[in-house]
Amino acid sequence: MKAIEKLRKKVKEHKHICVGLDTDLNKIPDHLKKSNNAIVEFNKAIIQNTKEVCAAYKINFAFYECRGLDGLKELEETIKMIPDDVLIIADAKRGDIGNTSKMYAKSVFEYYNCDAITLHPYMGSDSISPFTEYADKLNFVLALTSNKGADDFEKQELKSGEKLFQLVIKKIVEWNTNENCGFVVGATQPQELKENMNLLNRLPVLLPGVGAQGGDLGTIVNIFKESNHDDFLINVSRGLLYADPSEKFAETARELLIDFNNKIIEIYSK
Amino acid sequence: MKAIEKLRKKVKEHKHICVGLDTDLNKIPDHLKKSNNAIVEFNKAIIQNTKEVCAAYKINFAFYECRGLDGLKELEETIKMIPDDVLIIADAKRGDIGNTSKMYAKSVFEYYNCDAITLHPYMGSDSISPFTEYADKLNFVLALTSNKGADDFEKQELKSGEKLFQLVIKKIVEWNTNENCGFVVGATQPQELKENMNLLNRLPVLLPGVGAQGGDLGTIVNIFKESNHDDFLINVSRGLLYADPSEKFAETARELLIDFNNKIIEIYSK
Repeated sequence: MKAIEKLRKKVKEHKHICVGLDTDLNKIPDHLKKSNNAIVEFNKAIIQNTKEVCAAYKINFAFYECRGLDGLKELEETIKMIPDDVLIIADAKRGDIGNTSKMYAKSVFEYYNCDAITLHPYMGSDSISPFTEYADKLNFVLALTSNKGADDFEKQELKSGEKLFQLVIKKIVEWNTNENCGFVVGATQPQELKENMNLLNRLPVLLPGVGAQGGDLGTIVNIFKESNHDDFLINVSRGLLYADPSEKFAETARELLIDFNNKIIEIYSK
Repeated sequence: MKAIEKLRKKVKEHKHICVGLDTDLNKIPDHLKKSNNAIVEFNKAIIQNTKEVCAAYKINFAFYECRGLDGLKELEETIKMIPDDVLIIADAKRGDIGNTSKMYAKSVFEYYNCDAITLHPYMGSDSISPFTEYADKLNFVLALTSNKGADDFEKQELKSGEKLFQLVIKKIVEWNTNENCGFVVGATQPQELKENMNLLNRLPVLLPGVGAQGGDLGTIVNIFKESNHDDFLINVSRGLLYADPSEKFAETARELLIDFNNKIIEIYSK
Protein backbone atom coordinates (compact mmCIF):
# COMPACT_ATOMS: atom_id res chain seq x y z
CA MET A 1 0.00 0.00 0.00
CA LYS A 2 1.22 3.52 -0.79
CA ALA A 3 2.34 5.47 2.26
CA ILE A 4 -0.21 8.21 1.70
CA GLU A 5 -3.03 5.62 1.54
CA LYS A 6 -1.96 4.15 4.87
CA LEU A 7 -2.07 7.63 6.36
CA ARG A 8 -5.46 8.53 4.82
CA LYS A 9 -7.06 5.29 6.02
CA LYS A 10 -6.12 6.09 9.61
CA VAL A 11 -7.04 9.76 9.61
CA LYS A 12 -10.49 8.91 8.21
CA GLU A 13 -11.05 7.09 11.51
CA HIS A 14 -9.80 10.21 13.35
CA LYS A 15 -6.60 8.39 14.28
CA HIS A 16 -3.84 11.01 14.26
CA ILE A 17 -1.41 9.87 16.94
CA CYS A 18 2.02 8.72 15.88
CA VAL A 19 3.84 6.69 18.52
CA GLY A 20 7.46 7.79 18.68
CA LEU A 21 9.67 4.79 19.39
CA ASP A 22 12.51 6.77 21.00
CA THR A 23 13.28 3.76 23.13
CA ASP A 24 15.94 4.49 25.73
CA LEU A 25 17.47 1.68 27.79
CA ASN A 26 17.77 4.08 30.75
CA LYS A 27 14.09 4.90 30.75
CA ILE A 28 12.32 1.58 30.23
CA PRO A 29 10.78 -0.19 33.25
CA ASP A 30 13.25 -1.84 35.65
CA HIS A 31 11.85 -5.34 35.20
CA LEU A 32 12.83 -5.24 31.50
CA LYS A 33 16.32 -3.79 31.94
CA LYS A 34 17.78 -7.18 32.90
CA SER A 35 16.63 -8.80 29.67
CA ASN A 36 19.12 -9.56 26.89
CA ASN A 37 16.76 -8.08 24.37
CA ALA A 38 15.18 -5.34 26.48
CA ILE A 39 14.61 -2.76 23.72
CA VAL A 40 12.86 -5.22 21.42
CA GLU A 41 10.74 -6.62 24.27
CA PHE A 42 9.74 -3.10 25.26
CA ASN A 43 8.88 -2.14 21.67
CA LYS A 44 7.01 -5.42 21.15
CA ALA A 45 4.75 -4.74 24.12
CA ILE A 46 4.17 -1.14 23.02
CA ILE A 47 3.39 -2.15 19.43
CA GLN A 48 1.08 -5.02 20.45
CA ASN A 49 -0.89 -2.68 22.68
CA THR A 50 -1.05 0.34 20.39
CA LYS A 51 -1.07 -0.95 16.79
CA GLU A 52 -4.87 -0.86 16.51
CA VAL A 53 -5.31 2.57 18.04
CA CYS A 54 -2.38 4.59 16.66
CA ALA A 55 -1.97 6.09 13.18
CA ALA A 56 1.77 5.56 12.71
CA TYR A 57 5.07 4.71 14.37
CA LYS A 58 7.98 7.10 14.20
CA ILE A 59 11.31 5.42 14.73
CA ASN A 60 14.00 7.76 15.96
CA PHE A 61 17.10 6.27 14.31
CA ALA A 62 19.52 8.00 16.73
CA PHE A 63 18.23 5.91 19.65
CA TYR A 64 19.21 2.72 17.79
CA GLU A 65 22.39 3.95 16.06
CA CYS A 66 23.92 4.93 19.39
CA ARG A 67 24.29 1.24 20.24
CA GLY A 68 25.91 0.36 16.91
CA LEU A 69 25.19 -3.03 15.35
CA ASP A 70 23.15 -4.26 18.33
CA GLY A 71 20.95 -1.17 18.07
CA LEU A 72 20.47 -1.59 14.33
CA LYS A 73 19.48 -5.22 14.85
CA GLU A 74 16.85 -4.01 17.32
CA LEU A 75 15.70 -1.44 14.79
CA GLU A 76 15.23 -4.19 12.19
CA GLU A 77 13.36 -6.43 14.62
CA THR A 78 11.14 -3.53 15.67
CA ILE A 79 10.19 -2.67 12.11
CA LYS A 80 9.23 -6.30 11.43
CA MET A 81 6.76 -6.26 14.33
CA ILE A 82 4.75 -3.35 12.88
CA PRO A 83 1.68 -4.43 10.88
CA ASP A 84 1.69 -3.57 7.19
CA ASP A 85 -1.27 -1.19 7.39
CA VAL A 86 0.44 1.13 9.88
CA LEU A 87 2.77 3.81 8.54
CA ILE A 88 6.42 3.53 9.62
CA ILE A 89 8.25 6.87 9.65
CA ALA A 90 12.04 6.76 9.74
CA ASP A 91 12.88 9.82 11.81
CA ALA A 92 16.41 9.94 10.43
CA LYS A 93 16.67 13.59 9.32
CA ARG A 94 18.86 12.88 6.31
CA GLY A 95 19.89 15.13 3.40
CA ASP A 96 23.07 15.22 1.28
CA ILE A 97 24.27 15.74 -2.28
CA GLY A 98 22.42 13.68 -4.90
CA ASN A 99 24.55 10.54 -5.10
CA THR A 100 24.65 10.32 -1.29
CA SER A 101 20.96 11.06 -0.67
CA LYS A 102 20.32 8.21 -3.11
CA MET A 103 22.18 5.85 -0.76
CA TYR A 104 20.30 7.13 2.30
CA ALA A 105 17.00 6.63 0.45
CA LYS A 106 18.06 3.10 -0.43
CA SER A 107 18.87 2.41 3.22
CA VAL A 108 15.61 3.71 4.68
CA PHE A 109 13.14 2.81 1.91
CA GLU A 110 14.62 -0.44 0.61
CA TYR A 111 16.77 -1.99 3.34
CA TYR A 112 14.62 -1.00 6.34
CA ASN A 113 11.43 -0.88 4.26
CA CYS A 114 10.08 2.23 6.00
CA ASP A 115 7.13 4.10 4.48
CA ALA A 116 8.35 7.59 5.19
CA ILE A 117 11.37 9.63 6.26
CA THR A 118 12.16 13.03 7.79
CA LEU A 119 14.52 15.24 5.74
CA HIS A 120 16.70 18.34 6.21
CA PRO A 121 15.99 20.97 3.53
CA TYR A 122 19.22 23.01 3.92
CA MET A 123 21.03 21.55 0.86
CA GLY A 124 18.11 22.19 -1.52
CA SER A 125 16.29 20.38 -4.29
CA ASP A 126 18.89 17.86 -5.42
CA SER A 127 19.32 16.67 -1.81
CA ILE A 128 15.56 15.96 -1.60
CA SER A 129 14.79 14.54 -5.07
CA PRO A 130 16.49 11.12 -4.60
CA PHE A 131 13.93 10.50 -1.83
CA THR A 132 10.88 11.87 -3.67
CA GLU A 133 11.72 9.60 -6.62
CA TYR A 134 10.26 6.79 -4.52
CA ALA A 135 6.70 7.64 -5.52
CA ASP A 136 5.05 5.28 -3.00
CA LYS A 137 6.86 6.72 0.01
CA LEU A 138 6.32 9.91 2.03
CA ASN A 139 8.92 12.61 2.73
CA PHE A 140 8.41 14.87 5.72
CA VAL A 141 10.71 17.84 5.21
CA LEU A 142 11.70 19.92 8.25
CA ALA A 143 9.92 23.27 8.02
CA LEU A 144 9.54 24.74 11.50
CA THR A 145 10.87 22.47 14.22
CA SER A 146 9.74 22.14 17.84
CA ASN A 147 13.00 23.18 19.51
CA LYS A 148 14.27 26.56 20.70
CA GLY A 149 16.94 26.53 17.96
CA ALA A 150 14.14 27.01 15.39
CA ASP A 151 14.60 30.75 16.08
CA ASP A 152 18.23 30.73 14.88
CA PHE A 153 17.72 30.07 11.18
CA GLU A 154 14.22 28.71 10.43
CA LYS A 155 12.52 31.92 11.59
CA GLN A 156 15.01 34.28 9.95
CA GLU A 157 13.31 36.88 7.80
CA LEU A 158 14.40 36.89 4.17
CA LYS A 159 14.78 39.93 1.96
CA SER A 160 11.44 38.97 0.32
CA GLY A 161 9.72 39.49 3.68
CA GLU A 162 8.92 35.83 4.22
CA LYS A 163 10.67 33.65 6.76
CA LEU A 164 13.09 30.87 5.82
CA PHE A 165 10.67 28.11 6.90
CA GLN A 166 7.97 29.69 4.73
CA LEU A 167 10.26 29.59 1.70
CA VAL A 168 11.05 25.94 2.51
CA ILE A 169 7.32 25.18 2.55
CA LYS A 170 6.75 27.01 -0.76
CA LYS A 171 9.64 25.24 -2.49
CA ILE A 172 8.55 21.81 -1.28
CA VAL A 173 5.02 22.45 -2.57
CA GLU A 174 6.64 23.35 -5.91
CA TRP A 175 8.88 20.25 -5.96
CA ASN A 176 6.05 17.91 -4.93
CA THR A 177 5.54 16.48 -8.42
CA ASN A 178 5.18 12.91 -7.12
CA GLU A 179 2.67 14.01 -4.47
CA ASN A 180 4.73 12.40 -1.73
CA CYS A 181 6.02 15.36 0.26
CA GLY A 182 4.93 16.64 3.63
CA PHE A 183 6.30 18.78 6.45
CA VAL A 184 7.55 18.60 9.98
CA VAL A 185 6.08 21.43 12.05
CA GLY A 186 6.63 21.52 15.81
CA ALA A 187 3.49 21.26 17.94
CA THR A 188 5.19 23.86 20.15
CA GLN A 189 4.62 26.48 17.40
CA PRO A 190 0.78 26.78 17.28
CA GLN A 191 0.74 30.48 16.37
CA GLU A 192 3.02 30.03 13.37
CA LEU A 193 1.17 26.87 12.38
CA LYS A 194 -2.16 28.72 12.37
CA GLU A 195 -0.78 31.60 10.34
CA ASN A 196 0.73 29.28 7.74
CA MET A 197 -1.99 26.67 7.26
CA ASN A 198 -2.80 27.93 3.74
CA LEU A 199 0.85 27.77 2.74
CA LEU A 200 0.97 24.05 3.64
CA ASN A 201 -1.36 23.40 0.68
CA ARG A 202 -2.97 20.38 2.42
CA LEU A 203 0.27 18.37 2.29
CA PRO A 204 0.70 15.87 5.16
CA VAL A 205 2.14 17.33 8.37
CA LEU A 206 4.02 15.51 11.11
CA LEU A 207 3.94 17.37 14.42
CA PRO A 208 6.36 16.39 17.16
CA GLY A 209 6.53 18.26 20.45
CA VAL A 210 3.35 17.27 22.30
CA GLY A 211 4.04 16.22 25.88
CA ALA A 212 7.65 16.47 27.11
CA GLN A 213 8.35 19.42 24.80
CA GLY A 214 5.22 21.35 25.84
CA GLY A 215 2.94 21.25 22.79
CA ASP A 216 -0.84 20.99 23.39
CA LEU A 217 -2.83 18.33 21.53
CA GLY A 218 -6.19 20.11 21.54
CA THR A 219 -4.77 23.37 20.21
CA ILE A 220 -3.15 21.59 17.27
CA VAL A 221 -6.20 19.48 16.39
CA ASN A 222 -8.44 22.55 16.42
CA ILE A 223 -6.13 24.38 14.00
CA PHE A 224 -6.26 21.51 11.50
CA LYS A 225 -10.01 20.99 11.95
CA GLU A 226 -10.72 24.67 11.27
CA SER A 227 -8.69 24.46 8.05
CA ASN A 228 -10.29 21.19 6.89
CA HIS A 229 -6.79 19.78 6.65
CA ASP A 230 -7.01 16.10 7.64
CA ASP A 231 -3.59 14.68 6.80
CA PHE A 232 -1.75 15.37 10.03
CA LEU A 233 0.03 13.19 12.55
CA ILE A 234 0.78 14.24 16.11
CA ASN A 235 3.78 12.45 17.50
CA VAL A 236 4.00 11.49 21.15
CA SER A 237 7.11 9.70 22.38
CA ARG A 238 8.24 10.13 25.98
CA GLY A 239 4.72 11.01 27.18
CA LEU A 240 3.43 7.59 26.12
CA LEU A 241 6.41 5.28 26.47
CA TYR A 242 7.54 6.19 29.96
CA ALA A 243 4.29 7.29 31.62
CA ASP A 244 4.17 4.13 33.71
CA PRO A 245 7.32 2.45 35.07
CA SER A 246 5.42 -0.68 36.15
CA GLU A 247 4.95 -3.99 34.33
CA LYS A 248 1.74 -2.52 32.91
CA PHE A 249 3.60 0.19 30.93
CA ALA A 250 2.23 -0.93 27.57
CA GLU A 251 -1.39 -1.12 28.76
CA THR A 252 -0.97 2.37 30.20
CA ALA A 253 0.42 3.61 26.86
CA ARG A 254 -2.63 2.12 25.13
CA GLU A 255 -5.02 3.81 27.58
CA LEU A 256 -3.30 7.18 27.17
CA LEU A 257 -3.42 6.77 23.40
CA ILE A 258 -7.16 5.98 23.52
CA ASP A 259 -7.61 9.10 25.68
CA PHE A 260 -5.83 11.14 22.99
CA ASN A 261 -8.02 9.56 20.28
CA ASN A 262 -11.18 10.32 22.26
CA LYS A 263 -10.09 13.91 22.76
CA ILE A 264 -9.61 14.24 18.98
CA ILE A 265 -12.98 12.60 18.23
CA GLU A 266 -14.59 15.00 20.71
CA ILE A 267 -13.06 18.00 18.95
CA TYR A 268 -14.26 16.74 15.56
CA SER A 269 -17.77 16.05 16.89
CA LYS A 270 -18.29 19.67 17.94
CA MET B 1 45.09 13.14 20.54
CA LYS B 2 42.56 15.95 20.10
CA ALA B 3 41.02 16.11 16.63
CA ILE B 4 42.30 19.62 15.99
CA GLU B 5 45.86 18.51 16.88
CA LYS B 6 45.68 15.66 14.38
CA LEU B 7 44.58 18.14 11.72
CA ARG B 8 47.25 20.73 12.58
CA LYS B 9 50.03 18.14 12.52
CA LYS B 10 49.13 17.18 8.96
CA VAL B 11 48.61 20.67 7.56
CA LYS B 12 52.00 21.74 8.94
CA GLU B 13 53.44 19.21 6.46
CA HIS B 14 51.22 20.74 3.70
CA LYS B 15 49.02 17.66 3.76
CA HIS B 16 45.50 18.85 3.04
CA ILE B 17 43.89 16.00 1.13
CA CYS B 18 41.07 14.11 2.78
CA VAL B 19 40.34 10.75 1.18
CA GLY B 20 36.60 10.25 0.90
CA LEU B 21 35.74 6.62 1.47
CA ASP B 22 32.48 6.65 -0.52
CA THR B 23 33.06 3.03 -1.37
CA ASP B 24 30.52 1.71 -3.84
CA LEU B 25 30.31 -1.99 -4.65
CA ASN B 26 29.34 -1.13 -8.25
CA LYS B 27 32.45 0.95 -8.82
CA ILE B 28 35.29 -1.04 -7.28
CA PRO B 29 37.61 -3.05 -9.58
CA ASP B 30 36.12 -6.24 -11.01
CA HIS B 31 38.70 -8.55 -9.45
CA LEU B 32 37.48 -7.50 -5.98
CA LYS B 33 33.76 -7.73 -6.65
CA LYS B 34 33.75 -11.51 -6.22
CA SER B 35 35.19 -11.32 -2.71
CA ASN B 36 32.97 -11.90 0.33
CA ASN B 37 34.41 -8.84 1.98
CA ALA B 38 34.98 -6.65 -1.09
CA ILE B 39 34.34 -3.26 0.51
CA VAL B 40 36.72 -3.90 3.42
CA GLU B 41 39.41 -5.30 1.10
CA PHE B 42 39.08 -2.26 -1.15
CA ASN B 43 39.24 0.17 1.79
CA LYS B 44 42.17 -1.74 3.30
CA ALA B 45 44.22 -1.38 0.13
CA ILE B 46 43.31 2.32 -0.18
CA ILE B 47 44.16 3.04 3.48
CA GLN B 48 47.45 1.10 3.38
CA ASN B 49 48.54 3.04 0.32
CA THR B 50 47.38 6.49 1.37
CA LYS B 51 47.64 6.68 5.18
CA GLU B 52 51.07 8.29 5.13
CA VAL B 53 50.30 10.84 2.43
CA CYS B 54 46.75 11.97 3.23
CA ALA B 55 45.55 14.32 5.94
CA ALA B 56 42.28 12.63 6.84
CA TYR B 57 39.66 10.09 5.85
CA LYS B 58 36.05 11.09 5.36
CA ILE B 59 33.64 8.21 5.72
CA ASN B 60 30.38 8.75 3.93
CA PHE B 61 27.96 6.90 6.22
CA ALA B 62 25.25 6.61 3.53
CA PHE B 63 27.44 4.27 1.47
CA TYR B 64 27.59 1.84 4.40
CA GLU B 65 24.07 2.32 5.80
CA CYS B 66 22.52 1.37 2.46
CA ARG B 67 23.63 -2.23 3.02
CA GLY B 68 22.25 -2.39 6.55
CA LEU B 69 24.04 -4.46 9.18
CA ASP B 70 26.61 -5.81 6.69
CA GLY B 71 27.47 -2.26 5.66
CA LEU B 72 27.80 -1.09 9.25
CA LYS B 73 30.13 -4.00 10.02
CA GLU B 74 32.29 -2.87 7.08
CA LEU B 75 32.19 0.68 8.44
CA GLU B 76 33.45 -0.58 11.80
CA GLU B 77 36.21 -2.64 10.21
CA THR B 78 37.24 0.28 8.02
CA ILE B 79 37.54 2.66 10.98
CA LYS B 80 39.73 0.15 12.85
CA MET B 81 42.21 0.09 9.94
CA ILE B 82 42.88 3.85 10.09
CA PRO B 83 45.99 4.81 12.13
CA ASP B 84 45.37 6.86 15.25
CA ASP B 85 47.21 9.94 14.00
CA VAL B 86 44.95 10.37 10.97
CA LEU B 87 41.69 12.28 11.43
CA ILE B 88 38.50 10.28 10.80
CA ILE B 89 35.56 12.42 9.69
CA ALA B 90 32.11 10.87 9.93
CA ASP B 91 30.34 12.44 6.97
CA ALA B 92 26.94 11.70 8.46
CA LYS B 93 25.24 15.12 8.20
CA ARG B 94 23.26 14.77 11.42
CA GLY B 95 21.27 17.35 13.39
CA ASP B 96 18.14 16.98 15.55
CA ILE B 97 16.55 18.24 18.77
CA GLY B 98 18.85 18.13 21.81
CA ASN B 99 18.06 14.72 23.28
CA THR B 100 18.33 13.12 19.83
CA SER B 101 21.50 14.92 18.71
CA LYS B 102 22.99 13.60 21.96
CA MET B 103 22.33 10.04 20.76
CA TYR B 104 23.81 10.74 17.31
CA ALA B 105 26.90 12.23 18.97
CA LYS B 106 27.19 9.13 21.14
CA SER B 107 26.96 6.93 18.04
CA VAL B 108 29.58 8.74 15.98
CA PHE B 109 32.01 9.89 18.70
CA GLU B 110 31.76 7.02 21.19
CA TYR B 111 30.56 3.92 19.37
CA TYR B 112 32.41 4.50 16.07
CA ASN B 113 35.14 6.54 17.73
CA CYS B 114 35.35 9.08 14.90
CA ASP B 115 37.27 12.34 15.42
CA ALA B 116 34.88 14.61 13.59
CA ILE B 117 31.41 14.83 12.09
CA THR B 118 29.51 16.89 9.50
CA LEU B 119 26.34 18.61 10.77
CA HIS B 120 23.20 20.26 9.39
CA PRO B 121 22.66 23.76 10.87
CA TYR B 122 18.94 24.14 10.02
CA MET B 123 17.60 23.31 13.50
CA GLY B 124 19.88 25.80 15.27
CA SER B 125 22.05 25.95 18.38
CA ASP B 126 20.51 23.21 20.53
CA SER B 127 20.82 20.75 17.63
CA ILE B 128 24.57 21.48 17.43
CA SER B 129 25.58 21.79 21.10
CA PRO B 130 25.31 18.07 22.01
CA PHE B 131 28.13 17.52 19.48
CA THR B 132 30.29 20.49 20.49
CA GLU B 133 30.13 19.30 24.12
CA TYR B 134 32.70 16.70 23.06
CA ALA B 135 35.61 19.12 23.44
CA ASP B 136 38.20 16.82 21.80
CA LYS B 137 36.18 16.30 18.63
CA LEU B 138 35.63 18.49 15.56
CA ASN B 139 32.29 19.56 14.13
CA PHE B 140 32.12 20.61 10.49
CA VAL B 141 28.83 22.47 10.07
CA LEU B 142 27.36 22.79 6.57
CA ALA B 143 27.75 26.39 5.44
CA LEU B 144 27.80 26.52 1.63
CA THR B 145 27.63 23.11 0.01
CA SER B 146 29.05 21.96 -3.32
CA ASN B 147 25.76 21.02 -5.01
CA LYS B 148 23.40 23.01 -7.21
CA GLY B 149 20.76 22.96 -4.49
CA ALA B 150 22.97 25.35 -2.48
CA ASP B 151 21.18 28.11 -4.42
CA ASP B 152 17.76 27.16 -3.04
CA PHE B 153 18.20 28.12 0.62
CA GLU B 154 21.89 28.55 1.54
CA LYS B 155 22.35 31.51 -0.81
CA GLN B 156 19.03 33.19 0.05
CA GLU B 157 19.47 36.82 1.01
CA LEU B 158 18.20 37.72 4.45
CA LYS B 159 16.55 40.97 5.46
CA SER B 160 19.86 41.99 7.08
CA GLY B 161 21.51 41.87 3.63
CA GLU B 162 23.66 38.85 4.38
CA LYS B 163 23.05 35.42 2.92
CA LEU B 164 21.80 32.48 4.97
CA PHE B 165 25.14 30.64 4.80
CA GLN B 166 26.89 33.79 6.05
CA LEU B 167 24.58 33.93 9.06
CA VAL B 168 25.29 30.22 9.69
CA ILE B 169 29.02 30.96 9.66
CA LYS B 170 28.62 33.94 12.05
CA LYS B 171 26.48 31.96 14.49
CA ILE B 172 28.86 29.00 14.52
CA VAL B 173 31.80 31.34 15.23
CA GLU B 174 29.72 32.70 18.12
CA TRP B 175 28.80 29.22 19.45
CA ASN B 176 32.38 27.92 19.13
CA THR B 177 33.13 28.13 22.86
CA ASN B 178 34.92 24.77 22.90
CA GLU B 179 37.01 25.69 19.86
CA ASN B 180 35.90 22.57 18.05
CA CYS B 181 33.75 23.89 15.23
CA GLY B 182 34.52 24.18 11.56
CA PHE B 183 32.65 24.48 8.27
CA VAL B 184 31.83 22.59 5.12
CA VAL B 185 32.27 24.81 2.06
CA GLY B 186 32.02 23.33 -1.42
CA ALA B 187 35.17 23.52 -3.56
CA THR B 188 32.76 24.32 -6.41
CA GLN B 189 32.10 27.75 -4.84
CA PRO B 190 35.52 29.49 -5.12
CA GLN B 191 34.12 33.00 -5.59
CA GLU B 192 31.94 32.83 -2.48
CA LEU B 193 34.77 31.18 -0.56
CA LYS B 194 37.17 34.02 -1.44
CA GLU B 195 34.66 36.68 -0.49
CA ASN B 196 33.94 35.07 2.87
CA MET B 197 37.41 34.04 4.06
CA ASN B 198 37.41 36.67 6.82
CA LEU B 199 34.03 35.53 8.07
CA LEU B 200 35.39 32.00 8.57
CA ASN B 201 37.55 33.38 11.39
CA ARG B 202 40.29 30.77 10.75
CA LEU B 203 38.08 27.89 11.82
CA PRO B 204 38.83 24.57 10.09
CA VAL B 205 37.19 24.12 6.69
CA LEU B 206 36.33 20.88 4.93
CA LEU B 207 35.95 21.29 1.16
CA PRO B 208 34.26 18.57 -0.87
CA GLY B 209 33.67 18.92 -4.59
CA VAL B 210 37.13 18.62 -6.19
CA GLY B 211 37.13 16.17 -9.09
CA ALA B 212 33.80 14.57 -10.06
CA GLN B 213 31.86 17.66 -8.92
CA GLY B 214 34.10 20.09 -10.81
CA GLY B 215 36.04 21.98 -8.11
CA ASP B 216 39.66 22.98 -8.85
CA LEU B 217 42.35 22.13 -6.28
CA GLY B 218 44.79 24.91 -7.20
CA THR B 219 42.15 27.64 -7.02
CA ILE B 220 41.10 26.54 -3.52
CA VAL B 221 44.65 26.21 -2.17
CA ASN B 222 45.57 29.68 -3.47
CA ILE B 223 42.58 31.23 -1.69
CA PHE B 224 43.60 29.72 1.64
CA LYS B 225 47.28 30.55 1.14
CA GLU B 226 46.51 34.20 0.39
CA SER B 227 44.47 34.40 3.62
CA ASN B 228 47.10 32.63 5.76
CA HIS B 229 44.38 30.20 6.73
CA ASP B 230 46.04 26.78 7.14
CA ASP B 231 43.35 24.58 8.67
CA PHE B 232 41.63 23.31 5.56
CA LEU B 233 40.98 19.88 4.12
CA ILE B 234 40.16 19.21 0.50
CA ASN B 235 38.16 16.05 0.05
CA VAL B 236 38.59 13.83 -2.98
CA SER B 237 36.47 10.69 -3.26
CA ARG B 238 35.54 9.34 -6.68
CA GLY B 239 38.55 10.99 -8.37
CA LEU B 240 40.95 8.92 -6.24
CA LEU B 241 39.07 5.71 -5.52
CA TYR B 242 37.96 4.80 -9.02
CA ALA B 243 40.65 6.36 -11.21
CA ASP B 244 42.12 2.96 -12.03
CA PRO B 245 39.95 -0.15 -12.48
CA SER B 246 42.97 -2.49 -12.48
CA GLU B 247 44.52 -4.47 -9.63
CA LYS B 248 46.82 -1.51 -9.05
CA PHE B 249 43.93 0.82 -8.07
CA ALA B 250 45.37 1.58 -4.63
CA GLU B 251 48.88 2.36 -5.92
CA THR B 252 47.28 4.67 -8.51
CA ALA B 253 45.30 6.39 -5.74
CA ARG B 254 48.54 6.89 -3.81
CA GLU B 255 50.28 8.37 -6.87
CA LEU B 256 47.39 10.74 -7.57
CA LEU B 257 47.38 11.78 -3.91
CA ILE B 258 51.13 12.49 -4.02
CA ASP B 259 50.56 14.55 -7.19
CA PHE B 260 47.93 16.59 -5.28
CA ASN B 261 50.35 17.03 -2.36
CA ASN B 262 53.13 18.17 -4.71
CA LYS B 263 50.79 20.65 -6.36
CA ILE B 264 49.95 22.08 -2.93
CA ILE B 265 53.64 22.23 -1.91
CA GLU B 266 54.41 24.00 -5.20
CA ILE B 267 51.73 26.63 -4.52
CA TYR B 268 53.08 27.21 -1.00
CA SER B 269 56.67 27.45 -2.26
CA LYS B 270 55.86 30.37 -4.59
